[in-house]
Amino acid sequence: MNSRADSRFMRALRCEPVDRTPVWLMRQAGRYLPEYRATREQAGSFLALAGNPELACEVTLQPIRRFGFDAAILFSDILILPHAMGLGLRFTPGEGPWFERPLHQVADIDRLGRPDPEDDTGEVMAAVRLIRQSLPDKVPLIGFAGSPWTVATYMIEGRGSRDFARAKGLLLAEPAAAERLMHLLAEATADYLLAQVAAGADALMIFDTWGGILSPSLYRHYSLSSQARIVERLAADAPDTPVILFGKGCGQHIEAVAATGCAGVGVDWTMDLGEARRRVGPDIALQGNLDPSVLLTNPTVIGQQVHAVLDAHGSGPGHIFNLGHGITPEVPPEHVSCLVEAVRSYRAD
Amino acid sequence: MNSRADSRFMRALRCEPVDRTPVWLMRQAGRYLPEYRATREQAGSFLALAGNPELACEVTLQPIRRFGFDAAILFSDILILPHAMGLGLRFTPGEGPWFERPLHQVADIDRLGRPDPEDDTGEVMAAVRLIRQSLPDKVPLIGFAGSPWTVATYMIEGRGSRDFARAKGLLLAEPAAAERLMHLLAEATADYLLAQVAAGADALMIFDTWGGILSPSLYRHYSLSSQARIVERLAADAPDTPVILFGKGCGQHIEAVAATGCAGVGVDWTMDLGEARRRVGPDIALQGNLDPSVLLTNPTVIGQQVHAVLDAHGSGPGHIFNLGHGITPEVPPEHVSCLVEAVRSYRAD
Repeated sequence: MNSRADSRFMRALRCEPVDRTPVWLMRQAGRYLPEYRATREQAGSFLALAGNPELACEVTLQPIRRFGFDAAILFSDILILPHAMGLGLRFTPGEGPWFERPLHQVADIDRLGRPDPEDDTGEVMAAVRLIRQSLPDKVPLIGFAGSPWTVATYMIEGRGSRDFARAKGLLLAEPAAAERLMHLLAEATADYLLAQVAAGADALMIFDTWGGILSPSLYRHYSLSSQARIVERLAADAPDTPVILFGKGCGQHIEAVAATGCAGVGVDWTMDLGEARRRVGPDIALQGNLDPSVLLTNPTVIGQQVHAVLDAHGSGPGHIFNLGHGITPEVPPEHVSCLVEAVRSYRAD
Repeated sequence: MNSRADSRFMRALRCEPVDRTPVWLMRQAGRYLPEYRATREQAGSFLALAGNPELACEVTLQPIRRFGFDAAILFSDILILPHAMGLGLRFTPGEGPWFERPLHQVADIDRLGRPDPEDDTGEVMAAVRLIRQSLPDKVPLIGFAGSPWTVATYMIEGRGSRDFARAKGLLLAEPAAAERLMHLLAEATADYLLAQVAAGADALMIFDTWGGILSPSLYRHYSLSSQARIVERLAADAPDTPVILFGKGCGQHIEAVAATGCAGVGVDWTMDLGEARRRVGPDIALQGNLDPSVLLTNPTVIGQQVHAVLDAHGSGPGHIFNLGHGITPEVPPEHVSCLVEAVRSYRAD
């Protein structure tokens, strides 16, 4: 067992006892950090930053250096995989990401190929290798991908959406094509995550940002089942690499998420963590779930709310402290220090 | 008992047997209808339309004439009440509503007064009276307001928001001021709804559009408790007028919503209606819950999905068919006809 495997984060993910709750933050390598903004400036664009292994490594390490988080997460984007499938990812400042060639017709789906992770996303794998070499030995590295459904929403809509009518319309009106797309994305995502493991990722995370906008039947059939397929392939081919499934607005499905065989479930801030623990039982890790907006208040409130999350989970094993969604650009870095300090200084009554 | 009290909608709201499931749609008087767009054009602006009792009556009746819905809902906006409190509501095309004088400081909250419904929102009460006179005798009229929390988000943020950081910040960092604001809004909203009842509303609905973005503890303390206070005042002063509470993204709190004493709960499309029924028991009406995006597909899918919602609820009493959120402007009116026809022709197996 390497020293990472015995780290707080990895132990908590296996529901083993830890000296204190491990902590990291979704999107911890991001715009709230002045050193990130400087490196992003140097790269010239988000895509240039994500595509440059040295710079991607640098921004991945920045929050580890500054805050001593218990895990690092690869700096990348969930849309790099569909970009590698030929959709033409673009970032327009102030508008978010969009695709030059979205899936507008069923024929567009049938033209998609399954990327080769090293050939088609080699810069991601190079970044993982470099980060793994550069990180302190005891700090585990989390690789990640978007869930097939969440990635598909951008592929179909071409960009973010308010109501996702086009993406839902495909599921409802073209179920056979939707199944083919989800199947392809599940296999391609499993390939992509397995390559990250081969390159040095210690744990994996799948982000289902838009699972919560589906009706329960569509959620189970399209989003959850494709995530379960990925977990199944990872269990077969990377059995020592735990997977965390995070779904925003998916609290009501938490038992079903936990039943996929994942090691941990990410919980957004709209669910009480004690209730989440009662519902999934003691054998699965829970990651979360402070409302990111709390980081915009003040040190006193941050300390109180961090402790409320820790209290809600209780003193049993298997809790990884995190936000309930990504940190936002407006957060003062010193507020993140307050959060980390509140986790470190916590003693359950 | 007037003929409205014995209508399908009112009977279903009391969980009494009906010949078939009643149906109406949130935002049924809206931009998807060419006749609405013509009247809106005639009025010149949204505020002029909402402020003109004759034109507000006309657009309220349009969907009743076209589709024969089982209930009418007052044409108005949840922001009319804070507008009457002096915040200066404005609508900029393509940008949504905003306030000229949002609550930026605690002192702004303490300057707010409690409006007199007839003096300060007289055009709304005039519209209710006119609609009641103009509607067919058998069609009940639903009055409505926003929930205190949802209205407060716009009052604090000044407009719609992506993360509601400022509004949540008030709850977290200025709890005493937040309590005063919620208390004032609860009393003012109860006054406003009671005046709608006096003017002729047969049932009431409270829209908690943004309840689902709160953590469970903030949701219960601020959003749900202020709705419960309104329900309590309505039960005391308008005991024959049933209230429906609708919260978007609040499915996990459905037992607590049902326990307020409301007659019905609006359910968004992310919860299975059969599960909702099991969780609230047989004595409360459930309203919903087709995903509005279904209306953008095709007649076959619309028919299937309408029947899936009816199947999910099952044949017990207390179901009012509706969407899980408001109808969107892009929906072809003939698709609404398909929906209504699918509800009318449904026979449970």
